[in-house]
Amino acid sequence: MTATAAAILIGNELLSGKIADKNLVVLAKTLRELGVRLARVSMVPDDVELIATEVRTLAQTHSWVFTSGGVGPTHDDVTVEAVARAFEQQVVVHPELATMIEGVYGESLREGHLLMARVPERARLVRSEVVPWPAVVCENVMLLPGVPEIFSMKMKLVASIVEPARPFITLAVNVNVDEGTLKPALDETVELFPDVEIGSYPTFRDPVVRTKLTFDGTQRAQCEAARDAFIERLGSEAVVGLEG
Amino acid sequence: MTATAAAILIGNELLSGKIADKNLVVLAKTLRELGVRLARVSMVPDDVELIATEVRTLAQTHSWVFTSGGVGPTHDDVTVEAVARAFEQQVVVHPELATMIEGVYGESLREGHLLMARVPERARLVRSEVVPWPAVVCENVMLLPGVPEIFSMKMKLVASIVEPARPFITLAVNVNVDEGTLKPALDETVELFPDVEIGSYPTFRDPVVRTKLTFDGTQRAQCEAARDAFIERLGSEAVVGLEG
Repeated sequence: MTATAAAILIGNELLSGKIADKNLVVLAKTLRELGVRLARVSMVPDDVELIATEVRTLAQTHSWVFTSGGVGPTHDDVTVEAVARAFEQQVVVHPELATMIEGVYGESLREGHLLMARVPERARLVRSEVVPWPAVVCENVMLLPGVPEIFSMKMKLVASIVEPARPFITLAVNVNVDEGTLKPALDETVELFPDVEIGSYPTFRDPVVRTKLTFDGTQRAQCEAARDAFIERLGSEAVVGLEG
Repeated sequence: MTATAAAILIGNELLSGKIADKNLVVLAKTLRELGVRLARVSMVPDDVELIATEVRTLAQTHSWVFTSGGVGPTHDDVTVEAVARAFEQQVVVHPELATMIEGVYGESLREGHLLMARVPERARLVRSEVVPWPAVVCENVMLLPGVPEIFSMKMKLVASIVEPARPFITLAVNVNVDEGTLKPALDETVELFPDVEIGSYPTFRDPVVRTKLTFDGTQRAQCEAARDAFIERLGSEAVVGLEG
């Protein structure tokens, strides 16, 4: 059984279009390499009750949930409280995080900085030698920061919580015909290979590649067979490139 | 009462990290300029039942729903069917769309191309002089294509379905102190201006701007008063820039 994941992207700044999310694609690629299927993503505002409901629902229906954003010390950072509320836990100061924060700020330490040591009471810290700062995990939820550079650094910690599985592989074929034209060949291939996930993506104003077809699965031989069956049906003269 | 919107980003290619979504931020900005509050976004795979459930739920709880993706002619394009199912409608061929498609493809027309003329039976077409191809609207759901260049072109049609409202305005202050340090000044300001939505965003390794504060609302005077109250409390020597 493939492990599943959901992501919750948190922040008014995303919903108002002030900032474009950059974290989801990074998480999606990381999970794919680990063989975890990202099944759903929600983007919600900085509202503790909304986030708590989302966390509770998705944590019940997925192996893992990853949150992005809302972990700073200001009034609009409510993710820690929301995750605690989702699991009916209190928010407490984690002594080890507090010590680390004191070490970073030294003389310039303010009360506000220590708010970043708050965690749900039954949370644990996940760390590795290559990631300088631990990540907070509560039940099956990993809390990640919204700042893209830090979010990306924490991706190395995802491997330390999920069960490694056979990774997905992707093969691709670029063709010079449009989707309407290639559809009969594609439909036959989809029918023949139910275990291969086949995708079809039109390009826009590309003079050479009109459509990209992808063949995904955990078995390379199956993906190759599906790809080759498609090419045979379409005619190899339409193929302008292979990937993977 | 501010109109609300939800967006549904559709596609296995987004969840697998093959493609980074580019459409959400474009939609978010468009809605904001029209004074519509984007309240939630969901990203789901190419699964007709999942999409139908999402459409049904979000259409009941928001003024408008916008879908992105899944409107082509291949097996993984199931948005039209899903929206039809959400509202218990049949899928039919729209004669006007079919005529337009025949005009585009001429001699090279295949059956597959005409699949792009399918719509839920009670859908309507929305058009404007500046957008060459109409958009399909069914109940309070606008179906938009996933290809970013085409998605962006269709943004001009959003204004023709939503009730124009007073747009949101955003003021911003860039400061050279971190969130932990500015928190007391910020908390007082948040308390004093409940009608202004105040956001605080740390930057990463910016040598000058440590935090960006935003002041959003529909009343410029209120936003300005909140911004000025914050600067007064923090001390103007910390301010390195104003926006808006």
